[in-house]
Amino acid sequence: MPVEIERKFLVVDDTWRWEVSRHRAMQQGYLGAPGGKASIRVRLEGKRALLNVKAAVMGAVRAEYEYEIPLEEGREMFDNLCIGRLEKTRHYIDRDGLTWEVDEFHGDNDGLVVAEVELIDPQQEIPRPAWLGREVTEEPKYYNHSLSLKPFRSWHAH
Amino acid sequence: MPVEIERKFLVVDDTWRWEVSRHRAMQQGYLGAPGGKASIRVRLEGKRALLNVKAAVMGAVRAEYEYEIPLEEGREMFDNLCIGRLEKTRHYIDRDGLTWEVDEFHGDNDGLVVAEVELIDPQQEIPRPAWLGREVTEEPKYYNHSLSLKPFRSWHAH
Repeated sequence: MPVEIERKFLVVDDTWRWEVSRHRAMQQGYLGAPGGKASIRVRLEGKRALLNVKAAVMGAVRAEYEYEIPLEEGREMFDNLCIGRLEKTRHYIDRDGLTWEVDEFHGDNDGLVVAEVELIDPQQEIPRPAWLGREVTEEPKYYNHSLSLKPFRSWHAH
Repeated sequence: MPVEIERKFLVVDDTWRWEVSRHRAMQQGYLGAPGGKASIRVRLEGKRALLNVKAAVMGAVRAEYEYEIPLEEGREMFDNLCIGRLEKTRHYIDRDGLTWEVDEFHGDNDGLVVAEVELIDPQQEIPRPAWLGREVTEEPKYYNHSLSLKPFRSWHAH
């Protein structure tokens, strides 16, 4: 079973920007209402569209399936069939043999920055960059699906 | 935009069986909770698995996107990530230049038989076979997604 092992952190300042090697604009939307056992996402990134199915469970290890689909079909689904949408810029930082993905959210999630790292083993040690803040892997409100429905700017206290 | 134009009918008796040219066993499950703008289906049929996204609107014309995926991944999603499942045998009847698909449901939908025909134009005339009953195209309870959650056998009056 393909699984994604991922840990997610806040950042304490902007110094991560100095380490970015590349970045990519992403739009993503969610098909299907929340409350099921899976989150179904359409992502548009540049000339690619991806349809992704991820187990709606909490924590670092989640079953994940991803398929590239025709861009035009991805756009139509994003525009017409999604009930939650968000936009972000994903910044890539290669460091200590790992790739950090720092997501800078836009629109209603403006102000939120989350750093993710994909791992091979959930027990794997992670050298912590100085800009790394509190871990939020187990906090559902930071899940992208959740952010698409209850965006950062609507939170009362954060 | 790829659309499916489909009309759906009950059958009045079993005489359709004499016209069947082939049939196929299908298992299908739904990812995502109901209430969104799309219904997301995993279908297992023989050695194929299909991931399908269909607009959750009522009526004969619906946007529909379908992608073949690896069988093993389809099976895992069916087993682990679906919240509604159903099984049926789809019988194919070629007649008057159209292909009728007669779905004979099993399990909790045992006893239900629905005949569907896919059209090129919603206004297209359909020669009606003698076994064709009442049209149910506009009745959401006959949608497969709905049958996977509120199966035929749970209906109080039908």
